[in-house]
Amino acid sequence: MKGSLLYEGKAKKVYHVNDQEDQLILSYKNDATAFNGKKKDQFEGKGRLNNLITSKVFEYLKQHQIDSHFIKALNDTEQLVQKTTIIPLEVVVRNVAAGSITRRLGIQEKTRFTPPIVELFYKKDELNDPLINDVHAYHLTDITEQELVYIKEMALTVNEQLTQLFKEANLQLVDFKLEFGRLADGTIVLADEVSPDTCRLWDLETGEKMDKDVFRENIGDLISTYENILQRLEANTHA
Amino acid sequence: MKGSLLYEGKAKKVYHVNDQEDQLILSYKNDATAFNGKKKDQFEGKGRLNNLITSKVFEYLKQHQIDSHFIKALNDTEQLVQKTTIIPLEVVVRNVAAGSITRRLGIQEKTRFTPPIVELFYKKDELNDPLINDVHAYHLTDITEQELVYIKEMALTVNEQLTQLFKEANLQLVDFKLEFGRLADGTIVLADEVSPDTCRLWDLETGEKMDKDVFRENIGDLISTYENILQRLEANTHA
Repeated sequence: MKGSLLYEGKAKKVYHVNDQEDQLILSYKNDATAFNGKKKDQFEGKGRLNNLITSKVFEYLKQHQIDSHFIKALNDTEQLVQKTTIIPLEVVVRNVAAGSITRRLGIQEKTRFTPPIVELFYKKDELNDPLINDVHAYHLTDITEQELVYIKEMALTVNEQLTQLFKEANLQLVDFKLEFGRLADGTIVLADEVSPDTCRLWDLETGEKMDKDVFRENIGDLISTYENILQRLEANTHA
Repeated sequence: MKGSLLYEGKAKKVYHVNDQEDQLILSYKNDATAFNGKKKDQFEGKGRLNNLITSKVFEYLKQHQIDSHFIKALNDTEQLVQKTTIIPLEVVVRNVAAGSITRRLGIQEKTRFTPPIVELFYKKDELNDPLINDVHAYHLTDITEQELVYIKEMALTVNEQLTQLFKEANLQLVDFKLEFGRLADGTIVLADEVSPDTCRLWDLETGEKMDKDVFRENIGDLISTYENILQRLEANTHA
């Protein structure tokens, strides 16, 4: 069923599906990278955890009327998805200040953003994924004004749903990154992954960081942290 | 008439006006700075040129129904303006790609932007005046959504008028930076300066750079270039 390799990214490999032109298989890798690839490592079991966590999250979103490219998990490290052409934008939603925004704008960590801040970054490794504004996005990608409004609204709706999902798992959703892709007919759907690699998650009681920041900042064990996230989601979701 | 020094910036000193609480005197300095102050020099006569060029430009805009803080030139290096509280935003309009945007987004120099690109930067030396989006602006300054719409529309209207003004002087307006301030009653008006320090101007025929880039890139004599701009404006404006 799995066809040839289409593309290898930092965290996933993407395969064609034989006799299914409109589907792809995502294979989650054990690699961890940070600071645009400047920090790298491998963690046995990471691919499995991100695949299972992302699957849980996309299933939850589907139950709440938010479609994505996700079809189903195939095994521990692979999932079947609808084939999309990824729009080269990283759409970041921030509920609380952490990470790059604190340095970039001099905002103190833990500052609450009400309403949440939505940021667009141009997905381009050579340029270090620069922050852009809406007009840049029209210039650099093929999205229209109307589609960008849709993407931002979608990002904020996902934020509401995931804030609730993680709250039930005793986690604060600090910020997260989404990517969107186009199906063959041009329709835009949520794509990529939603995992502790792409979300900042803090323990609701202790404030402990339970995401890729444990790797970025060398403050804990990545695998046991991600395993903990998966267990909390499994205990609390009714999927 | 000139009162005490209120503030000294990189390019201008700002003085109180005795017995006129709602006015200020801007005194243009001979200093040139680039790359957020990392490159510095002094040019005898620069203050006079920027004062006279800015005065010409604001007079021209006034004739075209665009008000600014400008009241009148007082002498070669000083002008009388309405007192405003500057909003800490640099509003940049780009007709053609040049400077930071080419490096930041990998866009080739001389690419035409149709429609023009409007960018907001947070005016904060310690942070190197970072690019921001609209939602950041609401968070970092006191402007409302409606006011930001007004500021951007105003910037595009100024662009249309200045493109015409400079075209008559055989110059292409490549990009420029505006700042806005609030009068005592909260009204937002165009403020700061419009000069070869804040505009990129290329000779319409030869493409020669005739603005602060001659200083940034060490490609010509700043004073004779700015003097040339003033002469072209004096020959072509009917002020």
